[in-house]
Amino acid sequence: MKKTFIYLSIMAIMASCSVAEKEKAPQTPVVAGETIQLQTPSKQGGASINEALWNRKSSREYANEPLTLEELSGVLWAASGVNRPDGHLTAPSALALYPIQTYAFLESGVYLYDAKNNTLERKVEGDYRHLATLQDFANTASLNIVYIADMLPYDSQSEMLLERQRILWGMDAAGYAENVNLYAAGHGLKSITRGGAKAEEILKLLQLNPLRYEFVLAQTVGK
Amino acid sequence: MKKTFIYLSIMAIMASCSVAEKEKAPQTPVVAGETIQLQTPSKQGGASINEALWNRKSSREYANEPLTLEELSGVLWAASGVNRPDGHLTAPSALALYPIQTYAFLESGVYLYDAKNNTLERKVEGDYRHLATLQDFANTASLNIVYIADMLPYDSQSEMLLERQRILWGMDAAGYAENVNLYAAGHGLKSITRGGAKAEEILKLLQLNPLRYEFVLAQTVGK
Repeated sequence: MKKTFIYLSIMAIMASCSVAEKEKAPQTPVVAGETIQLQTPSKQGGASINEALWNRKSSREYANEPLTLEELSGVLWAASGVNRPDGHLTAPSALALYPIQTYAFLESGVYLYDAKNNTLERKVEGDYRHLATLQDFANTASLNIVYIADMLPYDSQSEMLLERQRILWGMDAAGYAENVNLYAAGHGLKSITRGGAKAEEILKLLQLNPLRYEFVLAQTVGK
Repeated sequence: MKKTFIYLSIMAIMASCSVAEKEKAPQTPVVAGETIQLQTPSKQGGASINEALWNRKSSREYANEPLTLEELSGVLWAASGVNRPDGHLTAPSALALYPIQTYAFLESGVYLYDAKNNTLERKVEGDYRHLATLQDFANTASLNIVYIADMLPYDSQSEMLLERQRILWGMDAAGYAENVNLYAAGHGLKSITRGGAKAEEILKLLQLNPLRYEFVLAQTVGK
């Protein structure tokens, strides 16, 4: 009896060493609204960086399934969230000008990501995911991200040709998108960076002045 | 006596659960030569993707210390290595044209990364790290990466303006660089993506025709 108890205790301890890491992650539904409060991603989470890099690829087939609040929070934070007390972001920005805005096109609406408050602020209600792409597979994917440049920060670079400015904020957006690709690859999600969207319609929908804002890059994330 | 033995056994089993993960990684020196054979990074390695994203930042102070072969291999593979049997890379490329070449500026010489064979092919012997930057802190850092566009793949895009082509291969290089930033952040290395280098001197040194090749982006990785 005593030996059996000791044996079972040892087995239980050994089992708990491995089972502890495989606890099922919480799955909170995203509730649409004027503001969606996002969660702060855990300090330890997802696969290793090596595994994420081994898994990174462009997916072109997506289920019409929403992301959980945990997943949505992690993806947007990976793109352009705050990762240090001084407010710096997960991705770098050329000349530290940070012109890129991150918009989330969900089934419920189009939201602007607010890194400081870690929220999504709704700009338009309704399903406009099809505007965020030129490829039909993305129309019903969980999330389309659109990266838009606010050119105002570049007023300080009056000597710089517009074509050079476009290269720089293009690089910013591509870095944000690659953070997302690796986050997705490390959390069992699919993703793809895309160059095209219905840019003019997006700016109209969001009432963004084309003299100040321009479409830069898009991305699909889903299941 | 028996109780003590059982107690110690339980402690040893619990200790081994955590110690197993903290085995010291191998540290092979990089041997300079015409060809450096790089290692294939492990499938599981480095911190979690979340931790890497929490750690991602731009560093401007580097020790004059070489990377190990393991580190050098991992960094270059993260940039533009093969991660699938069909030969696709760790980072995406706009229109799948793959114009970007990845050059490693080490103390021993300037090398071109060959993804297919996972090697560094030496192009020039000698320390030219200072050409790969406009900022002195990078002159003696372990590794400077220079991303150069080979414009030949874009011959298929004759309708596309050169300024648009530059945006696209700029995005490619920025994605390669962000993979490196996250790899570094997940493996205890420092890094920074940089926009500037002595571009004309680099093309001359590598005997690259400026009508076909152009400098796109640079990066420092080190300790």
